[in-house]
Formats: sequence, structure tokens, C-alpha cells
Amino acid sequence: MGKFRKQHGLFVAEGSTNVLDFLAGDIKVVHLFATASWLKKHSKKVIKPVPAEIDEKEMKKISFLKNPSEVLAICKIPEYEPIDLTTLSELSLKLDDIHDPGNLGTIIRTADWFGINDIICSPDSTDAFNPKVVQASMGSLARVRVHYQHLENVLNNKPDYLKVFGAVMDGDPIDDVAKPQKGIILIGNEARGISGELLPLIDQKITIPFIRHSQKSAAESLNASIATAIICYAFRK
Amino acid sequence: MGKFRKQHGLFVAEGSTNVLDFLAGDIKVVHLFATASWLKKHSKKVIKPVPAEIDEKEMKKISFLKNPSEVLAICKIPEYEPIDLTTLSELSLKLDDIHDPGNLGTIIRTADWFGINDIICSPDSTDAFNPKVVQASMGSLARVRVHYQHLENVLNNKPDYLKVFGAVMDGDPIDDVAKPQKGIILIGNEARGISGELLPLIDQKITIPFIRHSQKSAAESLNASIATAIICYAFRK
Repeated sequence: MGKFRKQHGLFVAEGSTNVLDFLAGDIKVVHLFATASWLKKHSKKVIKPVPAEIDEKEMKKISFLKNPSEVLAICKIPEYEPIDLTTLSELSLKLDDIHDPGNLGTIIRTADWFGINDIICSPDSTDAFNPKVVQASMGSLARVRVHYQHLENVLNNKPDYLKVFGAVMDGDPIDDVAKPQKGIILIGNEARGISGELLPLIDQKITIPFIRHSQKSAAESLNASIATAIICYAFRK
Repeated sequence: MGKFRKQHGLFVAEGSTNVLDFLAGDIKVVHLFATASWLKKHSKKVIKPVPAEIDEKEMKKISFLKNPSEVLAICKIPEYEPIDLTTLSELSLKLDDIHDPGNLGTIIRTADWFGINDIICSPDSTDAFNPKVVQASMGSLARVRVHYQHLENVLNNKPDYLKVFGAVMDGDPIDDVAKPQKGIILIGNEARGISGELLPLIDQKITIPFIRHSQKSAAESLNASIATAIICYAFRK
């Protein structure tokens, strides 16, 4: 987890979609900075906290973005209870060491789309409240809970009836796999895939089938957030 | 299209996967810079051009990456003939103004995975040979041809039997749509979706169904590269 998160217990959200989602959700918005025109447009949605009106020049100074938006919020990082997998009524995503902030943010946004409430990341994964992750998640952190836990412990202590599906290069084609409504989908690191110590804890290895170009080789792999999305879609439809 | 591309007719590829794919493919590698250890490992694959051995310090100077890899290639930007859609034997992707280089690169990588040979981008889309796109495409630009054409012309002049499927927020659920082997998938801009002038040229509007969290709202949309990937998977399986 990031230094920023550890030091302050706060994170920054920018952009109208992001900030409006946090204002409407359970995460506490501590400070809100916005331009006059944004505040005018969204006055009904801003009750707490009292916003500070700033101009574009000031926004440029505090923003992490190349092209700052009209609104920036400082929010409290939520502390979630560890998941009780015995009460799980849906799919759960476990991410083993996802490093790229854009990938993690996109995975959170995709989980939100498919109604997945909880993601468990290995402790070495990127911090979900890193500004780049928040940016890519487009407000979905207001709904999806991201936990950091040792995946080996989690998988060793899960109820037997929850099957673990691991995304690998040489698994069963995902089209042919029986897909339960509750279950655990395990996604590995962008470069290395799923860690060696987690491989024996997989119940079924799954793979997204590729289609070879005529006479040419094909892509070696899919991007981690793309693979996650296709698997979520295949399980949920 | 980018200034870099226009000015030089050359692009930069970095990283072992990328460079090896270009060396094995049809795109001409003009210059190759690599560390001694990379050259030793891959000597059999490097026949042309004669590589320049450089050390890590020098690599850091010429690289676009924060963490430079061991190899960098300067390649010639290919000039492709416009696609003849009457000979199309597969799906074709048309991208209407994709702006984010990471998204475009990921879409190219995904197209490669699903055996899609051609992507047509609107002229305002990001340059496919921008270093960030090349990076995210992970060598797939060695196999997938990216064209820049006016989509309105292309769609107006396509054969009648090729159906245009447009990804929108209020279309038919993709699960229920009849999916031909040949056809055109149209993806819109990250923020604005498909342009107004292209909407009347869509034969069937399609949507990826979402699942609502209990009592909560859900994500407003999916990332453009994620939506593209799920649609390609749904059509190809």
C-alpha cells in the first residue's frame, strides 16, 4: 500500500463523476474544492462538507491531473471489516499483485458494472486509493470495497463450497466451464501471473480462448484488466 | 495523428516482447539499441538491422519509459492500403475518436488476441504509433493493421451484407444479439460515445448488460477498451 495512504488516511478524488459518486456514497468527503461554475451546477448535491470555491489557477496547483477538472475532493480512506466469505452471495475477485494503477482502477470500475461488491488484493498490490487508481475507477470506489489481505490465508480458510477459478494461460476454455453464481475469481500479476504458492489453491484453471491470425502468431496474453472483465462477463451472463 | 509520426515516418518500440514481435513481423526495424545481456540472449533473432550495443545509462537517455527495458527499436511506420471491406472474412473494429493511448494500445492487443486483423480509426483518434500506444499494445502492432479513415465514408460505402454493430448505453443486450462471423463493430469516444453523424449508420445498437448492486447505483459506463474486449469475446465465442 502507498505511502500517501499510510501517512494521512486520506485520498484525493478528482473529476465530476468521481466526486459526485463519493458525495452520494458511504465514503466520507472531508474537503471539497470546486470552481464557481461546478458549484452552481451541482449545488443541490453538495450539503456536506462546506465547499471551498477556488479558481482554475488554484485548481491547477492542487490537482494531480495534467488537465485539472472543476472539482477535487479529499476523502477519508474507508476501513472495511475483513470479508466473511461464508455470507458471500455473488462472485468475489481476488487480485494477486496487480501493479499498474490504471489496471486496478479499471478492474474496480468493471467489478462495479457487474455488481461485484468486494475485491481482495494481495498486500503487494497497488494502493486502491492512489490518485491514478481513483481516477481510472471513475467513482466506483464509492461502491466497491477493496480489501488488502494475504490471499493464501483467505483461500485456505474459505468455505469448501466456494470454488476458486484461476486465470492462467493453459486452463480450461472459459466457454466450457460450469459457472456458479457464487465463487472466487483469482487474477495474477501483469507480468508473472498467479504466484506459485497460490496455484495449488485453485480448483479450476480457466483461460480465455484466442483466435490465431492466418499464418501469424498471436498476442502472447491479454491485459490483466481486460482478462478480468471478460471473465466477469462470462460468469455473469 | 501525432506530430512524431508525421515528421519522421518512424516510431519507437521498447521492451523485449514488443521488439521481438517487430523483428519477426513485416514492419521494418530501422535501428536497434540493446544491452549486451539482451543481445546475448536473443542473438539468433537479431539478423537485421545490425544492433548498437549500449549500456543502461545510455538506454535511460533515449527511452520514453520510467523504467527502461533492455532493448529499444526505431521502426518504420507501415503504410497500409485502405481496407477492401468486400474481402473481409472476419470482424472489423472501427474506433470513433479513441483518445487515450493506453486504451488504443489495449484495444490493439485485444484485437490481436481475437484474430482481428484490421482496425479503422477516425482521423482524430490517437496515433497508433505514439510510444504509449506501442507500449500498451505489447507487440500486437506487428500483426494488427491500424488504418486512419473517415468512418462516415467507410460505413457509407460498405457492402450491404456487413452489419454495423454500435456500442451504446441503451442498445440490445449483447447476449441476445445474433452475431455473424463477418461484421463491423463500432466503438465510440471515451467521454462522448459514438458521434452523432455515425449513429444513423448503425444497423444494431448493442449494450453490455450491467448488474446492479443491491440498493446502490452502479458504474455509469465501462472503460472503452473493456467494452471493446467484452464485445469481441461475445462475438467470437
